Amino acid sequence: MTYCVGLRLDRGLVFMSDTRTNAGVDNISMFSKSFTWQKPGDRLITLMTAGNLATTQAVVSLLEERAKIPAERTPSILEVPTMFQVAQLLGETLSEVISQSKPGGAQAEDTGFNATLIVGGQINGMEPRLFLIYPEGNFIEASDDTPFFQIGEAKYGRPILLRGFRADMSFDEAVKLLIVSFDSTMKANLSVGAPLDLRIHENDKFDLRYDKRIEQDDKLFTTISDVWDQALTQAFDMLPDINLDQPS
Amino acid sequence: MTYCVGLRLDRGLVFMSDTRTNAGVDNISMFSKSFTWQKPGDRLITLMTAGNLATTQAVVSLLEERAKIPAERTPSILEVPTMFQVAQLLGETLSEVISQSKPGGAQAEDTGFNATLIVGGQINGMEPRLFLIYPEGNFIEASDDTPFFQIGEAKYGRPILLRGFRADMSFDEAVKLLIVSFDSTMKANLSVGAPLDLRIHENDKFDLRYDKRIEQDDKLFTTISDVWDQALTQAFDMLPDINLDQPS
Repeated sequence: MTYCVGLRLDRGLVFMSDTRTNAGVDNISMFSKSFTWQKPGDRLITLMTAGNLATTQAVVSLLEERAKIPAERTPSILEVPTMFQVAQLLGETLSEVISQSKPGGAQAEDTGFNATLIVGGQINGMEPRLFLIYPEGNFIEASDDTPFFQIGEAKYGRPILLRGFRADMSFDEAVKLLIVSFDSTMKANLSVGAPLDLRIHENDKFDLRYDKRIEQDDKLFTTISDVWDQALTQAFDMLPDINLDQPS
Repeated sequence: MTYCVGLRLDRGLVFMSDTRTNAGVDNISMFSKSFTWQKPGDRLITLMTAGNLATTQAVVSLLEERAKIPAERTPSILEVPTMFQVAQLLGETLSEVISQSKPGGAQAEDTGFNATLIVGGQINGMEPRLFLIYPEGNFIEASDDTPFFQIGEAKYGRPILLRGFRADMSFDEAVKLLIVSFDSTMKANLSVGAPLDLRIHENDKFDLRYDKRIEQDDKLFTTISDVWDQALTQAFDMLPDINLDQPS
């Protein structure tokens, strides 16, 4: 399993992904699920992947290859003019890989070769944009109403995002929120595991504002996790007494 | 969808279930998913159901019928001597109903007739016990290590249960914890909805200690939900500042 979250803040994009992959609980490996393409001064694009590892690795390899060699199929992810076309390119590459793996092509949820992607970034002169790309190759874009996307094991960590997210939060606050969401997920599902990859795009800067691998014993993680435990206990204590025996 | 939780506390059992059933988002109904059998001074048993509504209604009807009429197949749920045998009886009835609905019988997760049950109760002279019953008819029992069960849409509300549950908590505290867990779930999944059915068994009392239907606009619910929102915000504020730009 996997858990990745992409947030669209007023001041930029924040990406966090776990690194655990498993084929059964007795076959666990570590792979990064975050990939960044960068062209100084022109564009910064981060991709996160969930699903079949062979599929997602093939997608990334194809994108890399087409960006590096004089391609028969231009433009590459480093050349397309808009983030919308980046999402289109990713969707096409994803459904191409899935359909090659599966006779008959990607048709439904029933294939084991499926993968889902989050991609976000900015191209100079345009707004930063964040997309969620489905196995079928189509995609949706984050908006004011839906300002973040989750892929993989999304449910455990969703309530805290729904309650805690504000578009105007600082990067520090966003990272705290994400760590709480990941901590809840990792406590509930063993197949989501540290270290976590954190990448931040600041608006109109075309270098990664922040790129860090957070280990489970990292002070950043353990502090947030411990204090959150205490804070939740105190939050419970704040709840008003209810007297079950009195009619309400 | 459905969300039901059964807690095994030191002082008794607490059951909460939602009441929403749906066949698609345009076909929503309200059905109670909690059922209690009671024999004064002898036994108190509460059942909660998740899954195919036709299956769970058939299970309950069969149990009712066999408890009421001089049955060809005794003993009924009101007569079996132990809670273990109550769980067995429910498991048999459940897999009987599922196999009648499906040619070939209940074999795997692929049938749309599946249902999962939580049953808990106490028979005079014995300990209270809590069981989770699978569609195949087999079951597991709550223990000190696994003191609560969830069925249905369990993931959204699980992290807060994992963090907040203590076996020695009061009934009032347990109800607060459950309301927070249900509130998180209902905010994330429209197919889980109020009113909520709450039933409490106090140890060695064979009447329901508490039996209440909590509407979404019930003061009990709205107060907990609102204060929890504020308390979570304050919990966030308690998290220590992290300075992303400083090496940790």
